[in-house]
Amino acid sequence: MTRTEPAGTPLGDDFHLYDTTLRDGAQREGISYSVADKLAVARLLDELGVGFIEGGWPGAMPKDTEFFARAAKGELALKHAVLVAFGSTRKAGNSAEKDEQVRALLDAQAPVVTLVAKSDRRHIERALRVDVAEACDMVSDTVSFLVREGRRVFLDAEHFFDGYAYDADTALRVLEAGANAGADVVVLCDTNGGQLPLGLAETVREVKARTGFRLGIHCQDDTACAVANSVAAVQAGATHVQCTANGYGERAGNADLFGVTGNLVAKLGMEVLPTGGAAELTRVSHALAEIANIAPDTHQAYVGASAFAHKAGLHASAIKVDPLLYNHIDPALVGNDMRVLVTEMAGRASLELKGRELGVDLAGQPEALTSAVKKVKRLEAEGWSFEAADASLELLLRKETGEEDEAPFTLESYRVVLDHRSDGEVISEATVKVHVKGERVIATAEGNGPVHALDAALRKALSPYLSWLDSVELADYKVRILAGRSGTDATTRVLVESSDGENEWTTVGVHPNIVEASWLALCDALIHKNLRG
Amino acid sequence: MTRTEPAGTPLGDDFHLYDTTLRDGAQREGISYSVADKLAVARLLDELGVGFIEGGWPGAMPKDTEFFARAAKGELALKHAVLVAFGSTRKAGNSAEKDEQVRALLDAQAPVVTLVAKSDRRHIERALRVDVAEACDMVSDTVSFLVREGRRVFLDAEHFFDGYAYDADTALRVLEAGANAGADVVVLCDTNGGQLPLGLAETVREVKARTGFRLGIHCQDDTACAVANSVAAVQAGATHVQCTANGYGERAGNADLFGVTGNLVAKLGMEVLPTGGAAELTRVSHALAEIANIAPDTHQAYVGASAFAHKAGLHASAIKVDPLLYNHIDPALVGNDMRVLVTEMAGRASLELKGRELGVDLAGQPEALTSAVKKVKRLEAEGWSFEAADASLELLLRKETGEEDEAPFTLESYRVVLDHRSDGEVISEATVKVHVKGERVIATAEGNGPVHALDAALRKALSPYLSWLDSVELADYKVRILAGRSGTDATTRVLVESSDGENEWTTVGVHPNIVEASWLALCDALIHKNLRG
Repeated sequence: MTRTEPAGTPLGDDFHLYDTTLRDGAQREGISYSVADKLAVARLLDELGVGFIEGGWPGAMPKDTEFFARAAKGELALKHAVLVAFGSTRKAGNSAEKDEQVRALLDAQAPVVTLVAKSDRRHIERALRVDVAEACDMVSDTVSFLVREGRRVFLDAEHFFDGYAYDADTALRVLEAGANAGADVVVLCDTNGGQLPLGLAETVREVKARTGFRLGIHCQDDTACAVANSVAAVQAGATHVQCTANGYGERAGNADLFGVTGNLVAKLGMEVLPTGGAAELTRVSHALAEIANIAPDTHQAYVGASAFAHKAGLHASAIKVDPLLYNHIDPALVGNDMRVLVTEMAGRASLELKGRELGVDLAGQPEALTSAVKKVKRLEAEGWSFEAADASLELLLRKETGEEDEAPFTLESYRVVLDHRSDGEVISEATVKVHVKGERVIATAEGNGPVHALDAALRKALSPYLSWLDSVELADYKVRILAGRSGTDATTRVLVESSDGENEWTTVGVHPNIVEASWLALCDALIHKNLRG
Repeated sequence: MTRTEPAGTPLGDDFHLYDTTLRDGAQREGISYSVADKLAVARLLDELGVGFIEGGWPGAMPKDTEFFARAAKGELALKHAVLVAFGSTRKAGNSAEKDEQVRALLDAQAPVVTLVAKSDRRHIERALRVDVAEACDMVSDTVSFLVREGRRVFLDAEHFFDGYAYDADTALRVLEAGANAGADVVVLCDTNGGQLPLGLAETVREVKARTGFRLGIHCQDDTACAVANSVAAVQAGATHVQCTANGYGERAGNADLFGVTGNLVAKLGMEVLPTGGAAELTRVSHALAEIANIAPDTHQAYVGASAFAHKAGLHASAIKVDPLLYNHIDPALVGNDMRVLVTEMAGRASLELKGRELGVDLAGQPEALTSAVKKVKRLEAEGWSFEAADASLELLLRKETGEEDEAPFTLESYRVVLDHRSDGEVISEATVKVHVKGERVIATAEGNGPVHALDAALRKALSPYLSWLDSVELADYKVRILAGRSGTDATTRVLVESSDGENEWTTVGVHPNIVEASWLALCDALIHKNLRG
């Protein structure tokens, strides 16, 4: 619990890129992160180089409590970012140090705490049912207690803009209560998301002039202006911006981290990420969509697959001559690509780079690189996605470079039978016929679903022959149905995350049949383990 | 070819809500309107009450030529809107009246023509390869020819903002060429979509002051600011706004008609639609998504299904007391609805509210409410999630209130066999045994995956007995693997979205076996359809 400032960004602590995907973003309908998901999200955000990662609300949500506990035990080593715990001020009539929820914030051991406080008099009086003086005491007591305990504290002033319009004095008193008690940043929240940029910028400028406090901004997208409002607030003097990955959040969502960052970097020239960070925006956006199990928005600004795709025949030839006349920025700046039917890996340069990262040298083998680019493009057009499946990509690249394909086994056939019997019981049984170390092996096993049964049968068949097999376990399994309107006859993409206790790796399989797609990913997982030993 | 002004809107011709879904919106990857589609889109836009409908580019696109021909023959009777043909100025070195493309614009017989002209000197010199004087002549010749022929003309100044920043004089000369020749509105286009609201508003204000022309605005969404930029331009003096339905368009898309209109009506108090038009925004948005064959964006501002959905159980009771404290506008204003999401954190208040929304009155049945709350909590702890599955929740609530369970069929058993044969082929086959209308029916079918096969077998068994079955189709199918670290032995949650062409409804199934989970959701979908008739 030492560093409370972002590390490695040119702007240092002068500007805060603050992510709340794991707390406010998780309010989006349909998102439900496991603790492993949360750790993976935090690692990706740190790779990108955001300054602060709000991990959740310890004490209020059991998964969040566990997340902070595992982070504190060393499962989350952050290079750039600082971990933040979110919570509310003490209850009315209590003391901060005796408040259970406030204690839970301390127990989370995050170096920074963001406290939410009501700043709209109507909410204070009607929802909180206290007077303004008590509301301010709740803020100052809690802030000063946490500061005494060694935490850096930010204050989220909930419903600030509506509150300021209704009763500016109350709204400012809440900010003062926080700042005077030691809160480092007071964050103006457009909680209901009803603001427009010109008016919001005016308010931010006014509040800055009246208080001199360090201001943050938190916008919701109910007017479709969350990104615009966030950027306008920065232009008006805010130096701390709260966003979520891909704008995930309640109702219409939050300000999209990638849109906001793209604008700050490309339009305002602010170095809010470490060197090289901006070029990771597209990759990280897609990986975070994968973890949230939400199809990436192909038309998302800056990072969408279509963000720089040109359909207008009108422009086609002119684009070739002078691409920058038809793009608002160079797509490479944010790690994106101009081609129509863009894929993340489509370019030679990025595939070569990725190969180097995976230990496959493609630089000296232009033909292998060409054929790998072609193959990746073809597979991605069929629905494969290697963004979150490095292990499968590595196997593909090794095959293209002519390295021997050392599959530890080959399949003859499998059969899976699912029975929903008349007594209501549901049974899954799988039989595999495989060849391993010169032997033909048949094994049958049951499982609580078709993929589980198949995995069990495969293990039963192979484990006498492959000594390392027992150490490998399936850590996570994700299914994504591709193509919008075709129901159960659509293509299925399966991601399998495996672990041997030391390392974790992810493989992918795509097929119209979910069981076959799973089989492909399961096999890659074992082949990859065999390769690495 | 008489009326050139919008009819029936309080603002009349003083403000133009201009839609270009059929031309610029059709640039979106994946959209391909038939002529019948185009007519249907135009009718819906007219029902909503937009002032101008740009129908396409006659002469350049055969379907557009046909659309205008059929519209002129009386297939499109517009109540509010005026039809607009889009095209470009004459070619360099030609005369307007001899230019084939310009003649095609006349032949389209639309009362208004919007001409696109380059206003960025770099584009004029490098793409058009003429000098600025000739570019201006192309504009003034074409505008004055069309005006002489009785057309009202608007001028789209392409790449205006980039051009103005690079060489303001050239950009202004192009505007002048158009306005002096008789163009009624000069439209400032952010063609590359690189603008931010504060700067864009400043430019609009400046151009208005320097020229006094009637100004329009056309924004692309490459900075995720198209809606914000459009609204900022109106605040800065533009009185003509070009949008597309749901923001469809090239790259990141255009300014969303529904977001822009929502803001103009709800935030700026401008009566840009006929009386009652705003309340049609949600319906028309969804209908236009249907025609475009694109799933509606559930998180779209104002009109998305989740735009007013609240998840935080924390607030549920407060929301019931004072909904406007938690919504930026009354959702009814735009024809939307406040939805309460049932989640783990939910209590009696939100379930009662949800029941009312679904037409199940729990207020007078405290015992049924108690047992429903208990059941929902238990199921959600097991991994069920009703927040996106209203139809399943409705069935559950009806059961708790003692309404008869009128399942149209019962299951005896099913069996699914999946074969990956030694020749590599993968086969899925399902057999169901069901009881329907006193009969025991057995049916077998194949599919390209286990769920598809099961769905096919069930339909085969039931369709002779249930006349409505053929109208029901699976519109979407989602799979979520629950629980973090347990791999393939985890619980699976399946969401099935069904449609009968008029209504859509979503059901949920949870089970360790993905096929059984799918079965549960499929059955709920049919039972719900049977209930509603």
